[in-house]
Amino acid sequence: MLCVRVWTRCGVRYRPWRRNASHVGAARLDLSGIYPPIATPFTAKEDVDYQKLEENLQKYDKIPFKGLVVQGSNGEYPYLTEEERVEVVKEVRRSLPLGKLLLAGSGCESTRATVQLTAKMAAVGADAVLVVNPCFYKGKMDIWALIHHFTKVADSSPVPVVLYSVPANTGLDLPVDAVVALSQHPNILGLKDSRGDITRIGLIVHKTKAQDFQVLAGSAGFLMAAYCVGAVGGVCALANVLGQELCELERLCRSGRWEEAKVLQQRLIEPNAAVTRKLGVPALKQAMEWFGYHGGACRSPLQPLTEAETQLLRRDFSTNGWL
Amino acid sequence: MLCVRVWTRCGVRYRPWRRNASHVGAARLDLSGIYPPIATPFTAKEDVDYQKLEENLQKYDKIPFKGLVVQGSNGEYPYLTEEERVEVVKEVRRSLPLGKLLLAGSGCESTRATVQLTAKMAAVGADAVLVVNPCFYKGKMDIWALIHHFTKVADSSPVPVVLYSVPANTGLDLPVDAVVALSQHPNILGLKDSRGDITRIGLIVHKTKAQDFQVLAGSAGFLMAAYCVGAVGGVCALANVLGQELCELERLCRSGRWEEAKVLQQRLIEPNAAVTRKLGVPALKQAMEWFGYHGGACRSPLQPLTEAETQLLRRDFSTNGWL
Amino acid sequence: MLCVRVWTRCGVRYRPWRRNASHVGAARLDLSGIYPPIATPFTAKEDVDYQKLEENLQKYDKIPFKGLVVQGSNGEYPYLTEEERVEVVKEVRRSLPLGKLLLAGSGCESTRATVQLTAKMAAVGADAVLVVNPCFYKGKMDIWALIHHFTKVADSSPVPVVLYSVPANTGLDLPVDAVVALSQHPNILGLKDSRGDITRIGLIVHKTKAQDFQVLAGSAGFLMAAYCVGAVGGVCALANVLGQELCELERLCRSGRWEEAKVLQQRLIEPNAAVTRKLGVPALKQAMEWFGYHGGACRSPLQPLTEAETQLLRRDFSTNGWL
Amino acid sequence: MLCVRVWTRCGVRYRPWRRNASHVGAARLDLSGIYPPIATPFTAKEDVDYQKLEENLQKYDKIPFKGLVVQGSNGEYPYLTEEERVEVVKEVRRSLPLGKLLLAGSGCESTRATVQLTAKMAAVGADAVLVVNPCFYKGKMDIWALIHHFTKVADSSPVPVVLYSVPANTGLDLPVDAVVALSQHPNILGLKDSRGDITRIGLIVHKTKAQDFQVLAGSAGFLMAAYCVGAVGGVCALANVLGQELCELERLCRSGRWEEAKVLQQRLIEPNAAVTRKLGVPALKQAMEWFGYHGGACRSPLQPLTEAETQLLRRDFSTNGWL
Repeated sequence: MLCVRVWTRCGVRYRPWRRNASHVGAARLDLSGIYPPIATPFTAKEDVDYQKLEENLQKYDKIPFKGLVVQGSNGEYPYLTEEERVEVVKEVRRSLPLGKLLLAGSGCESTRATVQLTAKMAAVGADAVLVVNPCFYKGKMDIWALIHHFTKVADSSPVPVVLYSVPANTGLDLPVDAVVALSQHPNILGLKDSRGDITRIGLIVHKTKAQDFQVLAGSAGFLMAAYCVGAVGGVCALANVLGQELCELERLCRSGRWEEAKVLQQRLIEPNAAVTRKLGVPALKQAMEWFGYHGGACRSPLQPLTEAETQLLRRDFSTNGWL
Repeated sequence: MLCVRVWTRCGVRYRPWRRNASHVGAARLDLSGIYPPIATPFTAKEDVDYQKLEENLQKYDKIPFKGLVVQGSNGEYPYLTEEERVEVVKEVRRSLPLGKLLLAGSGCESTRATVQLTAKMAAVGADAVLVVNPCFYKGKMDIWALIHHFTKVADSSPVPVVLYSVPANTGLDLPVDAVVALSQHPNILGLKDSRGDITRIGLIVHKTKAQDFQVLAGSAGFLMAAYCVGAVGGVCALANVLGQELCELERLCRSGRWEEAKVLQQRLIEPNAAVTRKLGVPALKQAMEWFGYHGGACRSPLQPLTEAETQLLRRDFSTNGWL
Repeated sequence: MLCVRVWTRCGVRYRPWRRNASHVGAARLDLSGIYPPIATPFTAKEDVDYQKLEENLQKYDKIPFKGLVVQGSNGEYPYLTEEERVEVVKEVRRSLPLGKLLLAGSGCESTRATVQLTAKMAAVGADAVLVVNPCFYKGKMDIWALIHHFTKVADSSPVPVVLYSVPANTGLDLPVDAVVALSQHPNILGLKDSRGDITRIGLIVHKTKAQDFQVLAGSAGFLMAAYCVGAVGGVCALANVLGQELCELERLCRSGRWEEAKVLQQRLIEPNAAVTRKLGVPALKQAMEWFGYHGGACRSPLQPLTEAETQLLRRDFSTNGWL
Repeated sequence: MLCVRVWTRCGVRYRPWRRNASHVGAARLDLSGIYPPIATPFTAKEDVDYQKLEENLQKYDKIPFKGLVVQGSNGEYPYLTEEERVEVVKEVRRSLPLGKLLLAGSGCESTRATVQLTAKMAAVGADAVLVVNPCFYKGKMDIWALIHHFTKVADSSPVPVVLYSVPANTGLDLPVDAVVALSQHPNILGLKDSRGDITRIGLIVHKTKAQDFQVLAGSAGFLMAAYCVGAVGGVCALANVLGQELCELERLCRSGRWEEAKVLQQRLIEPNAAVTRKLGVPALKQAMEWFGYHGGACRSPLQPLTEAETQLLRRDFSTNGWL
């Protein structure tokens, strides 16, 4: 079997993990649903603005999200200090109703830093951690290095781990073979896949079906198609802006109302592309302002939109009937 | 409007095309369904083996395909002379029942060569032509050059034109804006999209919905998801091998039996990847042999599979229950 | 040895080639010097304009070029029919003085077509052929396929073969290991490398030094650096425009006057980038007009420069003191 | 002028900087020469091993390096905490003779973190800082964002700044236009360019020649060619292993002994590729062991070489006569 060889190759002691074991209850946490990867508001001086964050959370509270992702790519986590990363999670936990899940991003470049930050995130109340793959030494992040890394993190984590693949930022796609091997770890619960290769998503669902492994679409542009091939939910930047609509899309998909779903999905593709791939976090924050949330500026070196970009952004919302 | 500007910019005289006009009946041809992009059998001396081709066609005749694609990438068309390209289409037309569509690949690098080959394909009985974008001068194939090229070809073509985007081979993705502009041409009927970016496919369906523009999935790996977001069929290399199964997948998708479709779709992803992205045309031809068709060798420089590759190929079929 | 294994793996009968053998005199042809890869002038109707071609040749005759490359990428060869490709070479041969070399591009996608066109090019007077690697089935053009292809072509060619790697157009870099293996073929004389990775060029020179293998820089931007690491000449699009200056740069490099060479080289980088990577063949042809040659329009789908592009082009020449 | 527009566009107040101003003496620091970007030794528990670091430094002291780079990519800086990054620089400063330069890597993703770490690096004795471009939000790191970032850092830095472009790790190439604009900042001294596009390096030298801007080759594979087109030195991973030889190569280049330089340069290409692009930091550390230095293990997730990789590494040194 690949996996036995894998663990051996990685110098990780192979254990006949049993998914039924009580380990940390990984298999129990149901991730299905929609999550906004929340933006981090800043003051004019680029400090975290906890007041505005709190006000956004109160608004999100009225939307039937399954929970929130804190410190995803849209949270500008690479621009926060470790202390800030933990503090933001702590604040969100404080105001989040108990029924809602808090998924905290705890990925760092080194394994030891990721292990440590994961423990801190669990300590301040994260229900699970979202761990992006290391990426600086791209040429060396082969399947063995990745499996070693995530295994170490999952072994020590007090809460379940969700893998996170976002090649637009990291330049690396978590290989399917690595995901399949890691799906057997009792403390690894699922994957957030942001690239949107639907063939790959279908294949991962197929090859992990014995493991009750949960796949989340990492962007709103392919949410319906991801449901169609077996994903259980989505972590979508656009949910910061059109949260109610994405929950509605989820409802239509889950109840098999595909024709209605298709009409709604199609209207979401361009606004979603605008706040992600095309114009990024500054656009997401600008759109949040238009829809009654606090977005505000990004931390530098991210720059505010130009006037022309703002018009493009507005057009992608207005031509689809959202503005 | 983008399009008016586009035609002007391209030096193409703008005409208020009306889709209802009798032009060439483009709007009438219904492309919906499954097509194998048929392989071209060769003799030991690398000549086209028309006898074996004929025998394959007789077997395909029993499968409820909508038609055949002749001279797609899997037909090794870049390795055929212009005369061979036309001759193969002529032979296929001879044995193809009238109810089935023949889509002939007529794309060349230059506009004039494409115009000429298109006319020849129509003359020997193609119902429509599939025109891949030119790609050698990648840096210069911007939206204007592409619109100019396809407009000239469609203007002169006696049969409807289907756009063809296959970046794995050409290194270029036909831009969405070019597709949307071209969808307004009365003699351009649809698009075969082989990359499988489901967000892009959904967006193209959305932005061309006023034009009755038909999108075909260019590979079996994302066929179900493509149906889900609005595609009307598929041109799938794997249909050379598992044609009946792909028609069954089509039937499930079109009748809304998504759960059954999902099970079948998932079993097709790995075999499909094996005969396309991973191991290519030589693998497709090897698999054809296993399933009772004539595959045989490729024309050089394509090399036969190594023993190890053949085993990988077999495994991708057998672990999914096809061998 | 890699090479023995290589020939065996490729199904090519291994022969203990001796570079001293009289085979075809490959080892004798000295490629060193500068070559313009000549542009192909067209009439307003996009036919080859042999009259203008002839006039260009007469002007090039006064420049100390080592010879001409006909049907390189800048000659728009993918847009010519096979007949036109041969005819243009024939015409050039007619007016080229005997002392100058004629290198004819004869690369096609299939091995058999390349073998045939190579024979035709030799028959009409090419001194050597420049053979680009096939590239449509990128995933299958591994080292074995490439070695097989070029070996077959070189085995049958009546004239020596020069390998040609131009990844900007083909999407593939001829692997160093393939080049090194092929350098041992007695009828393979050298390589035109257009990417400009100077580390790679140095390595190829190093690993083929036992073979008297000649490397030509494929662009003017890195001509001096290529000489520095061991190249013997250059095939430079810019030589269509600033031929005298490139021959002067060659002279400075070969006589070790590196400081003067550096000053000249630096002034050539931007004009060269403008007529290649940035604005392509249409820009090359526009610049030719400014410098007294016939450039004219390209064959479609290549489009003429816009006004803004023409100004950018002019600026890249004028700020470096050439206009 | 581009630059005036640039500063304005970036919201940075334009100041008529004068390179002669006494600002921080940026123009005075002569960077010319060879630098090893030193590796960071770890204990078996993956803690920084200061003892072994010290022993390496004593050996480097006997080689005519211009100085050392601490926290370049080969120092595994993304795997160190901020405290460790500063502490390592402090330790190196303690044992480095006064005549040698200490260039400390201080790049972080956010501008504020980079500003702060830069100040700390200066405080513990760095002569200059090497600042890599932020890269996580690739799509947003356009020329404006990059100019804004580096300007803020350079404005506040107590020591001169050297730009650092290493696309193999960051996925981004610092654009030429950004480099040229930033070269006018009185506190920005030069560029370490690791990609090795010699045309680009020549162009940067050309377009910054009025600024006394110093370009360092970022890898040993193209060191000689970089000198040839105007670079003043090199920061080369291979200098951790073959430091004396790289200093000899520098000497040959600077004294115009190009033929001897070429012979030496060619023998260095494969060993250099092995410890960088092909096998990375673990290979660099393995090779250090063979040549009498302390290399040891990397911090996880970097994995030790496999046996097969170790043999490949050895071969790349031995076939070139170094082992």
